Amino acid sequence: MKIKYELHKKDKNTLGRYGTLHTNYGSFETPMFMPVGTLANIKTLTTDQVKAEGSAVILSNTYHLWLRPGADIVEKAGGLHKFMNYDGPILTDSGGFQVFSLAKNKKDIVEEGVHFKSHLDGKKLFLTPELSIQIQNKLDSDIAMSFDECPPASASHEYLKNSVERTLRWAARGKAVHSNPNQSLFGIIQGGAYEDLRNFSAIETVKMDFDGYSIGGVANDGESKEDMYKAIDYSIPYIPENKPRYLMGVGDPIDIIEGVIRGVDMFDCVLPTRIARHANAFTRKGKINLRNAKFKEDFTPIEEHCDCYTCTHYTKAYIRHLVTSGEALGGSLLSIHNIRFLIRLTEDLREAIKEDRLLEYKEEFLKEYNWKHD
Amino acid sequence: MKIKYELHKKDKNTLGRYGTLHTNYGSFETPMFMPVGTLANIKTLTTDQVKAEGSAVILSNTYHLWLRPGADIVEKAGGLHKFMNYDGPILTDSGGFQVFSLAKNKKDIVEEGVHFKSHLDGKKLFLTPELSIQIQNKLDSDIAMSFDECPPASASHEYLKNSVERTLRWAARGKAVHSNPNQSLFGIIQGGAYEDLRNFSAIETVKMDFDGYSIGGVANDGESKEDMYKAIDYSIPYIPENKPRYLMGVGDPIDIIEGVIRGVDMFDCVLPTRIARHANAFTRKGKINLRNAKFKEDFTPIEEHCDCYTCTHYTKAYIRHLVTSGEALGGSLLSIHNIRFLIRLTEDLREAIKEDRLLEYKEEFLKEYNWKHD
Repeated sequence: MKIKYELHKKDKNTLGRYGTLHTNYGSFETPMFMPVGTLANIKTLTTDQVKAEGSAVILSNTYHLWLRPGADIVEKAGGLHKFMNYDGPILTDSGGFQVFSLAKNKKDIVEEGVHFKSHLDGKKLFLTPELSIQIQNKLDSDIAMSFDECPPASASHEYLKNSVERTLRWAARGKAVHSNPNQSLFGIIQGGAYEDLRNFSAIETVKMDFDGYSIGGVANDGESKEDMYKAIDYSIPYIPENKPRYLMGVGDPIDIIEGVIRGVDMFDCVLPTRIARHANAFTRKGKINLRNAKFKEDFTPIEEHCDCYTCTHYTKAYIRHLVTSGEALGGSLLSIHNIRFLIRLTEDLREAIKEDRLLEYKEEFLKEYNWKHD
Repeated sequence: MKIKYELHKKDKNTLGRYGTLHTNYGSFETPMFMPVGTLANIKTLTTDQVKAEGSAVILSNTYHLWLRPGADIVEKAGGLHKFMNYDGPILTDSGGFQVFSLAKNKKDIVEEGVHFKSHLDGKKLFLTPELSIQIQNKLDSDIAMSFDECPPASASHEYLKNSVERTLRWAARGKAVHSNPNQSLFGIIQGGAYEDLRNFSAIETVKMDFDGYSIGGVANDGESKEDMYKAIDYSIPYIPENKPRYLMGVGDPIDIIEGVIRGVDMFDCVLPTRIARHANAFTRKGKINLRNAKFKEDFTPIEEHCDCYTCTHYTKAYIRHLVTSGEALGGSLLSIHNIRFLIRLTEDLREAIKEDRLLEYKEEFLKEYNWKHD
């Protein structure tokens, strides 16, 4: 069965919308944040620990799983759900972003695909739109992504125009070989911050009739927030209302709010686990670093009213002790809190849409929130 | 309230015994293996994850907590139970072993205590029997240990004789300042593998009337298994039947069996978590290393009939993928299995005692078990 998006309610004052995405592994409400399990695990956590925080759909990575342990092993295990012990929906990205951001040295982009070197051992690799889809078919995720080119934020209009056209040809080639009847396939809209290119990419991608649509190329280094919001604004109007919209690689709380206001349903990012490994926690007032000496004797939770496992069981003083002593449990507890923080943010945003107060919610949030808080 | 040991049943053919230890934080049956949470956490795991494997009592470390975060912070948190979110019994060791094994450079043992340098920053420190007990009073563990000297396995009879006598004087000094009415205090029997010294140490320590007795100095580098068994044999007969006996630092499955046969009630060791960090798992056939390529497509659990969280949710192929990819979750899942393995071993040993078949159990176990298996 393919996924099915059900629209429940639109916000009166914005493009924000509240819905449900039905999958073979259960349904989840949108807008939703998806924790990232790059290598078939959400770093340091069991899937039960992640599910306990209200997580419903997780993301895993085609490029990484292709390299380790290999798509054939995951297929032999019975697919990614069985391999990693997760009975909820899984989305896999195409590997495109990693090929362009992670791979060693120069990449050679040709019409057929991308020649590049493994970030692990420098081994020569060649990834094509067909191979990306074939790998994802084997991984047996619920939602697969088309293989796209992810140009840098600095790319010129001319470069991007060619790139968008190639990404469209790649999307068609991937769709043609897609053969897993239980897996849905998303098209990816590219085009930087250029209105004409985003419009063109959106219109042409939608013509191919995918099961959902991603807005890609927005989480690149050096991209401004304004450009990210433009990219969304120029893409969303062309996506049919009955299909889910996924903003790739975005996990900053303010960007999630801005994305939801602009009509986005799904978000993913490594941010909650990555900042956790550096001892950081999201709070409604901003990010705090648990290494800070001021938490030495702070026997309150990270956030007073947070319902996550970490905040209901542990104090800042204890987590500070763990992170300053180099104990990995500190990062795990912070990951749990940060994942819950972003998932609760999307829960709050759904409630706000139900009550037509999305813009008020944003104002309230921004009044309190300061990214550099500590 | 002090702890209370209740003897249920003795094995007919050995000194093995089955009992219950009652503490302020619940009762647990003995023999029992205690996972080690050196720095107020069992590495990478939450206390709920550890409890789920049948763990009832855990160990934490006076030396490490004295250095980080400091006894005053733990005291201000409301004691170790509250600080680390553990509502089961906690035993703290005295710091003696760490001072002698971990501390940097030369130690200077004087009658008053031990001068040594911090293993973290080389800072000069001085630990005395009184200070060790005062720290443990503040940590508010259920069971505290007397501060003892842990001489190397190679120590001469002459050296050990003086050391045993000093440890007795230190035990008396520690007992004199012990002031936490909810905390029990154990005496530690030393004396290497010498019958006269172990006898002497046991008799004199028992005269001081502690709440329980430890057999120390048995997990030193270079000590033979025969010497360890001798140390137990020469100590146990002098410990009153109504007091618990704790063999310190022992977690090798065969040593646990041999210890139980010799009348030991409690064991602790970092082995299950330490070998897990090196990708090793205990099995009934011996230790296996999950990095081994033969597990690449092995979609069975570490042990077919194991009831631990890891074996009921994950395969060897998945754990191999995690450990070869450097994902910390691999070590966590292996720690869970290894802790369960040792706790189930003590469960099995209790059943064997109930049925007077402790020696048969040992034979069956040894028939299958090979430490270097893989």
